[in-house]
Order: sequence, then structure tokens, then C-alpha cells
Amino acid sequence: MGGKKLHNHNNNNNGAVDTNSNNSNRNGTTTTTTTTVKPPPVTLQQSPIINLDRGDPSVFEPYWRKNGGKCTITISGHDSLSYFSDPNSVCWYMEPELQEAIRRVHRVVGNAETEGCHVVAGTGSTVLFQAALYALSTSSSSSVAAEPMKVVCAAPYYSQYKEQVELLQSRLYEWGGDAETFDGSAAPFIEVVTSPNNPDGSLREAAVANKTGNGKLIHDLAYYWPNYTPITRPADYDIMLFTLTKCTGHAGSRIGWALVKDVEVAKKMTTFMQITTIGVSKDSQLRAAKILNVVAEDFGYAGNDADKTFFGESRKLMAERWEKLREAVKDKKDVFTLPKYPKRYCNFSGRYFQPAPAFGWLECKEGCDASALMKAHNVLTRGGETFGVSSRYTRISMIGREEEFERFIERISGIQCVDEEDEEEEEEEEGLVVMNGNNGGDVIRLGNGTSNGHGKWLEQVEVQ
Amino acid sequence: MGGKKLHNHNNNNNGAVDTNSNNSNRNGTTTTTTTTVKPPPVTLQQSPIINLDRGDPSVFEPYWRKNGGKCTITISGHDSLSYFSDPNSVCWYMEPELQEAIRRVHRVVGNAETEGCHVVAGTGSTVLFQAALYALSTSSSSSVAAEPMKVVCAAPYYSQYKEQVELLQSRLYEWGGDAETFDGSAAPFIEVVTSPNNPDGSLREAAVANKTGNGKLIHDLAYYWPNYTPITRPADYDIMLFTLTKCTGHAGSRIGWALVKDVEVAKKMTTFMQITTIGVSKDSQLRAAKILNVVAEDFGYAGNDADKTFFGESRKLMAERWEKLREAVKDKKDVFTLPKYPKRYCNFSGRYFQPAPAFGWLECKEGCDASALMKAHNVLTRGGETFGVSSRYTRISMIGREEEFERFIERISGIQCVDEEDEEEEEEEEGLVVMNGNNGGDVIRLGNGTSNGHGKWLEQVEVQ
Repeated sequence: MGGKKLHNHNNNNNGAVDTNSNNSNRNGTTTTTTTTVKPPPVTLQQSPIINLDRGDPSVFEPYWRKNGGKCTITISGHDSLSYFSDPNSVCWYMEPELQEAIRRVHRVVGNAETEGCHVVAGTGSTVLFQAALYALSTSSSSSVAAEPMKVVCAAPYYSQYKEQVELLQSRLYEWGGDAETFDGSAAPFIEVVTSPNNPDGSLREAAVANKTGNGKLIHDLAYYWPNYTPITRPADYDIMLFTLTKCTGHAGSRIGWALVKDVEVAKKMTTFMQITTIGVSKDSQLRAAKILNVVAEDFGYAGNDADKTFFGESRKLMAERWEKLREAVKDKKDVFTLPKYPKRYCNFSGRYFQPAPAFGWLECKEGCDASALMKAHNVLTRGGETFGVSSRYTRISMIGREEEFERFIERISGIQCVDEEDEEEEEEEEGLVVMNGNNGGDVIRLGNGTSNGHGKWLEQVEVQ
Repeated sequence: MGGKKLHNHNNNNNGAVDTNSNNSNRNGTTTTTTTTVKPPPVTLQQSPIINLDRGDPSVFEPYWRKNGGKCTITISGHDSLSYFSDPNSVCWYMEPELQEAIRRVHRVVGNAETEGCHVVAGTGSTVLFQAALYALSTSSSSSVAAEPMKVVCAAPYYSQYKEQVELLQSRLYEWGGDAETFDGSAAPFIEVVTSPNNPDGSLREAAVANKTGNGKLIHDLAYYWPNYTPITRPADYDIMLFTLTKCTGHAGSRIGWALVKDVEVAKKMTTFMQITTIGVSKDSQLRAAKILNVVAEDFGYAGNDADKTFFGESRKLMAERWEKLREAVKDKKDVFTLPKYPKRYCNFSGRYFQPAPAFGWLECKEGCDASALMKAHNVLTRGGETFGVSSRYTRISMIGREEEFERFIERISGIQCVDEEDEEEEEEEEGLVVMNGNNGGDVIRLGNGTSNGHGKWLEQVEVQ
């Protein structure tokens, strides 16, 4: 039964290298086509669940286990008692050490221009996205608008933007969907540009904001680090968001930062942070400062050999994973394909390399529900519809635990997609019909079952 | 010129002990009466600014300098990399150690019933208030309401609730003002009960929610600790908010928690935290767990002598400050009075004592702008109008730095209020006329001037 008839689907599309030119591959609407998924062999059905849905950056843990000693910090009982940190900064709750370390690491890596920018700290960069929405939608030029400002992003877009925008049903802003199909001529709007993009790893520029002059821009540069992509130039935009989570892998510290050119926007973002959380954990700020300083100093210790730095080691790790994935997928062109990324020169590394994004963006043949296909093989991924495109796409995390990634690579060979006519014979007996638009791609599992009956609830937790 | 004619104002009102019975003292509307403030002597005008506006809990810093060794934590480079903490808890990002420490300290202190409650962690309790608003306004019983749910609180209410409710102009909820004058019969609403109350230290029960049956309750119990008030019984409400900031003084760690009875509410609050910040700093969670465990263990170390614990020492400190304040204000009955609080038996301490709240709530004579009066003497406080009542009230922090508090006590003797007819002779030459409703009571200063020109911005930062 395992793969007796493979679907001959010739897919030459490289997916998402340039999302501005692949409209034909995107489909934001929900289709009602019934697709069927080949039931995996019994052995696979019983195999452990591999969770590649979430973006937990465990890939860097072995590095820190080996090299983390330099980052150790000690916090005494009388440290960090006050709300306040720095009266000389717009962001009064931000530790000066953290601000300095952030500017330093950007200088060393060369991925962002910090000169003339104000730095605003956040509990991760997620909350700074919301702070920026607040700042941009309440600025003097926006206040005349009676309607909520539309927030748009070119599809495929990070699945959480929409959730964040819609959470409190604000009258200040609302979700406007795909920037590519958005008419930006009517009223002021906000465009989010994620580069490299989550989910598809493409390098991006604004899709609509610069065309109409009505758009205000937020650049989410969480993945613009040399672990994932060549650093071709220092980014230089009005609002740039970064997070320790994707830079060094310290998700648990929840530290993000925004580089903001306009002081009034920086003040409003700080006000948002003040009213919602009265600042950001100082313990984690000081820890982040230490980690970023160690990462910046690496470069000197390594005799300016970028390969021996944290970023160099991490790049190798990511490149190895991508090589394994491409190798495993090579014989699966009839099932799914991966985007191809051109090599570019990285100013930090001093070498040409191909991007190795934090996520793999799998594309299946037309009509196939990619995340359902993976789920049938006990691999949890995040389906394309969550990202505003067709369910023939799905996103897999490339930054999870080593053993889980290796298990996935092994399992790929067994994943097969069959023709509908083939499946019709089997579906009643197998009960594995999957409806497009009704897939479980946005599901995350934390282990197999829990002791207090919250299992179902935890399945709905969707992170990054 | 210093106080040649004192105003004979006989004020017997004890302010805010029972806010349910002092409606006649509250005035939420802005009056247009011109009041005048006695210009202080030149020496006072030149004296340093004393900032008693903010609620930064520096009062406990000397204790932690002396006893903080037991709370020291060390965090290595490879710790806390993941977003996730506890798959067995509704609050999946919460460290099990923190949850256990929270339950333990409540058991030892006896201030809240945790049995049957879910614990949800927050970046301070401020954000958990917003998480609770989200949870209560999107529950199944609220979803039928076409109108935003009103959020009310009996005046004087904590000045930041309104700001938090109104920040994003949500369609889910909106500020409804004073609970005492709110008609709760029409539609479901949310009532916040702060007990002991900020600003006036009174112990409170719901003003309207229990009368109509339409109200959902959030209890903000930030100050229900034996440092401030006798613990008369374990609080036992649907949603109870606490924060490390006011419990132990560690504001910089930004750790708060909610005890929540209804699992669906706890899940929605967790979802809010997930979407807005993807959890809470683990570094600070682990630190908070350590601190709370030390505080709970104190009781055993001290041979069960509550006076020798952190709470016992802190209570003495707060009681001493209040004694000094009452002594200094004793001769100032013509200028301002303080609330009186009855002694109660504290189950934790095993003794009767009078509450010593985190804030002093000063009441001036009718027509006098209390915060303007204080500001004229270079004492920054937070005026009554911010709390939804008359400007004849103002709030002073009792938990700031020792030297600042002592300077304030010294300065009190020079503060005087004069009759209008008296002032009219002087106002042109002094230029110190203060209009009611136009005071600067909500201003905070972080030192005298800043190096980068953000001084004016920082004056607007209002915390706690």
C-alpha cells in the first residue's frame, strides 16, 4: 500500500524567493475541493509525533551548552528593584547596558544602521509590533482618519500578525490582508515587511507602501542575522524590529527591540509599553546585554574569523540542516518542493552563501493539503492558509531540536501523495479524507497528553 | 511672608476609609473655581524636587541589601532557551517553580485561597488586568452584547485602569467610570475592586457587581500583604491579581500573577498573554520563585515569629513612616488631613495593627488644589482628578527612598494654604495662581534635567 502510484506533478516553481512575482502561486481564498491523503504505513501511524509547527529555537542550545559559560549572570536580591533604568533615554525602562550592547552587535554584524535611531525595548518583538501599530495609528497625521487604519502584509505573511491586530477589536487599526492586492491609494495604512520572510525565507521590500505614499512601514527583521541569511547591507528603515529569540535563540528571556527613527514614534511606543506592562524585565534585559556583548566580542576573540563566532557556527548548523532537507526532498519532487535561494555575498562572513532560513516552506501539488498530508504522517506543521495562501503550502520549523529534525528527515521518504481516483477506493476503509480549509495545520502539541486534562487546550497553542 | 495668616478650615472628614459612604467628598467633575496657593519661602522654591508621584517600591531596598544574599540566582548561557515551561499547566509558559512558590507564599501568609485556582503569570499584574478584560469580554455570555462592556471601579480608583482600558479603543470593552454611580442593571459589565485601595488604602468589596448580578469581578489585591495591612482572611474571589512589585518590592522583574477559578477564563487570559507577548521572562520567573520561596521560608527560620520575617520587618518600616507622617501632619489640620484606619487582627502577624498603606491620601479644604499646593513646594504628587475625584485630594507615595521621604517630612511644616482674599494681594507679584482642573499633578520627574533633551517627555511618564 505504501506508494503504489505516485502523482506525476511537475513543479518547477521556486516558491518564495521573490514573493512580489509569484502571485499565481498564492491563493488566499478557501477552496472547497476535497483532497485525499495517502494513509501512511501502520508503522508510521504509530510513530511518535514530530512537532515542526512551532518556532522554538532549540537548534542553538548545544552551542550554548558548550559556550554559554561566558554568558552566565548572577542577580542578587537587591538588584533591579526599581521600575526605572535610564532617564537619558526615550525608553526610560531600558537598561543602558542593553541599549549599548544592541548598538554594538548591529555595528559588528552590519545588519542595521543604528545611528540616529532610538532603541525601544519589548517583551519580545511581538509586543513592539503592537506598540508600533499604536504609535502609527495615533500619530497626528492619522488622527483625522475616522476609520481604523488598515494593516497589510504581502502573503504569505507571518500567521500571528493578523491575530495580534484583531485581538482587541481596536478602532485604531484593523487587519487588511495581503498587501499585494491592497488598494493603498484611499487612506493611510500600515504595511509590515518581514525580511527574511516568515514563512518562506524570501528577502522583501515594501509591496505597496512606497507606491502610494499613504503607507507607513514596520520592518520585522527578526531573521536578518547571518545565521540565516547573507548580510548584504545595513538595513535602514523607519521602524525595525529585532528579537533575541531568533538572534541568539534565547526565547525564554522574551527580549526584543525596535530601532526607531522618529522620536515621537519612539515615545509613543514607549508609552504603549508603559501602559500595558510598565516596562520590560530588567533581569532579562541585563542577561540579554551580556549575551549580545559576548556575541559581539566573539568576533575579536576569533581573530576576526567570522566562521568561529556564534553566528558562524550557527550558520554552519543551519546550512547542514538545509542540505539534509534538500537531499531528503530531492526524490520527492512529485510530493513537494522547496524554494531555492540565490547565493549572495555576506559582509559579515566575508563569503558567498545561500540563505538557510528558520523555516522550510513546502509546496505540494495543486489540490493537495500539505499540512494534512504531513499530519497524516504524524508530522505537525503550519498550513499555508494560516499565512494567507493556499493549503498546498505548509511551513516546517528548521530550528527545533536536533533529534526531532533527524527523525523528520528519516520520515520524509515515507511521505507520499496519491491521485484522488486512487484514494477513493481506500478512503472509506481508512477514514482519512481531509477537507481543504478544515485542516489542523495550526495545531501544536506539547508532548503526548498531559496529566491534568488540558491536552486539548494545549493543542491550540500556536507560537511563532 | 511664610504663613502669616492660616486658613481656619475645620476638616473632620477621614477621607477614604470607606469609599462607599463618602460620596459627598468626591467630585469627578472639573470645577472652574480659581484657587490660589500660598507661595512658599524662597528657600523652599529653590529646594530640590521631592518626587512622591510614582509608586516605585524603593522602601524595601535596604532590607534586600542586607538580606538579599539568599535570593541570589545564577543564570547560565544555556538556561531558559525555550518559549515553553509547563505542559501540565493551563499557563504553559509559566515555570512550575514559580507556580509552586506562589501557592506556597499565599499559604504561609494566608492572604488568598489558591486551592482550585489556576495561576496565570504576567509581565507585572498590569497586563493581567488587560488579559482579564479580554477574557471576560469575550466569554460566551458576553459575546451576544453588541456594545462594548463597561469597566467600572469605585472612585477614587487607581489612575491607570482608565488608561489601560482606553488605550486601543477596543470594541470589546470601554471605561465606564465610577462604580458607585453606575447603573449596572442594563447590560453585563466588569467591576474592578482594588483592596486595599490605591490611592486611599481602604479595604473594599464590590460596589455594584453583587447588587445587579450583571457584573463580573476582577479583584486587584496588589496591596493585600502584611507589609501594608492586617491579613484578616484568605481572599477568595473569581479573579485575583497580585504582583511581586508590591509584595517584595522587585518592580524591575515585572512579575505578576492571577489566581483564576474558571479554567476557561484562565485559558483566555493565557491566550491573551500568548498573542501579545508569547509569555513572560523566564529569568524573572525563576528569580521571583526564588524570592518568594525565601520570603515563605523566613517564617520557619524566624521560629514562626512573623515580626522577624520580611513581611514583619517591612510592616515595621511602613508603620514608622506612617507614624512620622501623622506626627508631621498633626499640626496641619488647617491644610490637610489623612484617612484614619481602624486596627484589625492580622492572622499572619498574630497581632492587631493599623494599616500602613503604600500611599498617603491627603485631603485639603474645599476649593484647594492639593497637588498644585504640593507642587508649589516642589513636592510632586498625583492629584485627585486622576483618580476620578476632586482635586482637593492628592496621593503621595509612602514607599519611595528613605532620604526623599525624610525630606518630605521636614518640608511639611512649611506647606501652607491661604485665603483667597489674602492671596489676591500677592498673586500678581508672585505669579502663582493655580487653576483647578489645570494642575500638573500627574507629572513625574526623573532627576533634574536630562542630557539628550527628553526632559519634557519624561515629565509625562506616569507609573503606578
